[in-house]
Amino acid sequence: MNTPVTRTRALNSDSVRPKDEQLDHQRAAITVLGDELRALVDATVRTAASVETLERVADGVRGLTRQLTGRRRGPADIPAVDEFPGGVRMYSPVTGTGSPLAPPMRVATNGDGVVGHCTLGIAHEGPPGYGHGGMSAKLLDELMGWACAAAGTPGMTIALRLRYHRPVPLETPLRVVAHVTGTENRKILVAGSISTERAPSTALVTAAGTFVAPDPDRTRALFPNMSP
Amino acid sequence: MNTPVTRTRALNSDSVRPKDEQLDHQRAAITVLGDELRALVDATVRTAASVETLERVADGVRGLTRQLTGRRRGPADIPAVDEFPGGVRMYSPVTGTGSPLAPPMRVATNGDGVVGHCTLGIAHEGPPGYGHGGMSAKLLDELMGWACAAAGTPGMTIALRLRYHRPVPLETPLRVVAHVTGTENRKILVAGSISTERAPSTALVTAAGTFVAPDPDRTRALFPNMSP
Repeated sequence: MNTPVTRTRALNSDSVRPKDEQLDHQRAAITVLGDELRALVDATVRTAASVETLERVADGVRGLTRQLTGRRRGPADIPAVDEFPGGVRMYSPVTGTGSPLAPPMRVATNGDGVVGHCTLGIAHEGPPGYGHGGMSAKLLDELMGWACAAAGTPGMTIALRLRYHRPVPLETPLRVVAHVTGTENRKILVAGSISTERAPSTALVTAAGTFVAPDPDRTRALFPNMSP
Repeated sequence: MNTPVTRTRALNSDSVRPKDEQLDHQRAAITVLGDELRALVDATVRTAASVETLERVADGVRGLTRQLTGRRRGPADIPAVDEFPGGVRMYSPVTGTGSPLAPPMRVATNGDGVVGHCTLGIAHEGPPGYGHGGMSAKLLDELMGWACAAAGTPGMTIALRLRYHRPVPLETPLRVVAHVTGTENRKILVAGSISTERAPSTALVTAAGTFVAPDPDRTRALFPNMSP
């Protein structure tokens, strides 16, 4: 499921969109915190620290959470720092530089499709030494949604078929590609794959997806914070 | 891709397995840190805090990472607190109570299959208000691997087909189920679905997976830290 088709109506009703320079400054600070949290997550899943150290760090984390006071957005609220739809989603669990869950994957256009670059850390481990199969699905679902948008036909995932040919190595630069292969009425057909940057022609995981542009009534029902 | 089929040879060669009571104590501390980090991740992706606050929190996070000193495991090293294979993976990005990336999903047997329980937070958001489609894939891939193991035929994912019928709501208790539907030589066929706990008979996402028990030579090549 990915980028829906309508435009943002308003940011949170009580938020004011920052001016460009302020916006850049805010996004940079969000990214720095994202980077530091990714480093802490990596250290956490790799450490063999004592119970005492873990407890001390947990206390420290609790203290930091308390510093993030003030209003917190709810589900479906669109952050003032985002452009949605439009590509900037600071907290996306796949591409968001502000998300501790995201590798994050960087996306660019690539001929008639899109290409994503990222490296999976040990936090994304499935079988020892390799990425979780669901993480590969997440990278592909996300990028295939970008491929739909890049082709001018944004849609939501309705079907995804994945084939796992070889395990995806951790701590290895990855290349993810996706492009639209056709349309059938409101359905958009998309192909994608993951390889390493070093061996881009050896597919580790391949995917075929079917996306659909939801009709306006359904879009309004699903996304009340967005305009028609 | 999921639980491979062989048994653990040794924990990290220079690690000593803690005794049961110590092990429980260590796992409890790992879980507390996981809980606190999940709360910090949630606060981070929801906050509208100022640049100054974000910078101060980032400094604090950096300081905590520095406290996790000492040897850190590499990819494929199996943590001393895990039982792998066997079900306990403290840092699994899906089920690990020590992973800030995991919801975490709790898994239990369910008739001839398995059931998983979890709630997705805003950190797992795809379209505004709903879970990322790739996160649904991750929950299903993981649980279908558990279904293979529960049936006595553990395997790795080679194909996964997902159908997204309805969006998966955030902050709503979810029920994920999976069971083995058949075998074909070394292939294991598995079905799974996600619903809410409140409406368990309304499938939001359904999946069909093909898993395979890798042959011993391939297993040894893929997982050098495990015994035959």
